[in-house]
Amino acid sequence: MDERLKKQLNFSLEIDKEKTIVRQTHISGGSRKENDAEHAWHMAIMAYLLREYANEEVDITKVILMCLIHDIVEIDAGDTYAYDEEGLKSQKLREERAKNRIFSLLPEDQKSEMIALFDEFEDCQTPEAGFAHAMDNLQPLILNNSNNGGDWKEHNVSADAVYNRQKMTRLGSEKLFEVANLIIKENVRKGNLRQEK
Amino acid sequence: MDERLKKQLNFSLEIDKEKTIVRQTHISGGSRKENDAEHAWHMAIMAYLLREYANEEVDITKVILMCLIHDIVEIDAGDTYAYDEEGLKSQKLREERAKNRIFSLLPEDQKSEMIALFDEFEDCQTPEAGFAHAMDNLQPLILNNSNNGGDWKEHNVSADAVYNRQKMTRLGSEKLFEVANLIIKENVRKGNLRQEK
Repeated sequence: MDERLKKQLNFSLEIDKEKTIVRQTHISGGSRKENDAEHAWHMAIMAYLLREYANEEVDITKVILMCLIHDIVEIDAGDTYAYDEEGLKSQKLREERAKNRIFSLLPEDQKSEMIALFDEFEDCQTPEAGFAHAMDNLQPLILNNSNNGGDWKEHNVSADAVYNRQKMTRLGSEKLFEVANLIIKENVRKGNLRQEK
Repeated sequence: MDERLKKQLNFSLEIDKEKTIVRQTHISGGSRKENDAEHAWHMAIMAYLLREYANEEVDITKVILMCLIHDIVEIDAGDTYAYDEEGLKSQKLREERAKNRIFSLLPEDQKSEMIALFDEFEDCQTPEAGFAHAMDNLQPLILNNSNNGGDWKEHNVSADAVYNRQKMTRLGSEKLFEVANLIIKENVRKGNLRQEK
């Protein structure tokens, strides 16, 4: 087998580990927490079906790819919960190291392409990155809402913290931010989200 | 919220159930079986990275979408193991019913589009469908190989049965069929795959 193909297959096997990275969000029904691979799959389909709501026209293939690969770094760096302030401080460094190790398994051209895609997602300056971030936030929101806010209650999350996070949704889609807003308001009303005094 | 968006979000929540459909293939390391959502995610990334090996040029966005949605019907129909002859007989009917129920949650235009995509994958007559099938077969092959053929041993699978299945890989990619061939031969040599007399 030639070297290029061997590298591509090694990378393909390595990313299987993403299935073991557990997030804080529970799947619908609440039976267990979801993992990064499931989350990425879910985001990618949602991105395709909801693309008409992007604030600007997007290259949907690029958005889907960002959704699919954005959490690969967590194979080494672990999942950092969106409302874990301590973890968020060291997240950047941990993810940089992981990015270099994991994408270096690929042939050079594909390594560069994947890193560029990951960085574009992280920098969140393009319509594609904005829309992918909107999915990254909306997907757990609809799951958590379907589970009567169980994840928020478990972590005693405030409405302000969720709004802060959903700023990213707004960058990608005003229309979907409206949905997030409705969901947050309803969960405040139900007492699932803490309101700061 | 308007009716169209409500339908799209209902569908997005419904497909979360795909995360509970367990396949026969174990993840690398062998700790547990993988589910359909993880499998679809894995296939989609592999399709993008290995697209240069498709027998004919493919619309990679279409291939990725096929990978992402091809198992949604299993939410109702369940996973049918590739080497379960009885299950395979009723699979078509069960999946047809599931297809109609689940994709009908979407707005009419997206329902038609998703059903057309699913049918194209199933009929396997286009380069895109062939390449998506190649991923559907190669992905569990590399996992099973990494686990020393554990899934084959558990089900007492023969090399002929695996070759029969990997015909689909050949439709999509001669080059990746060569990889499959190497893997099968090695697993026969190791005694992980049964050889018919």
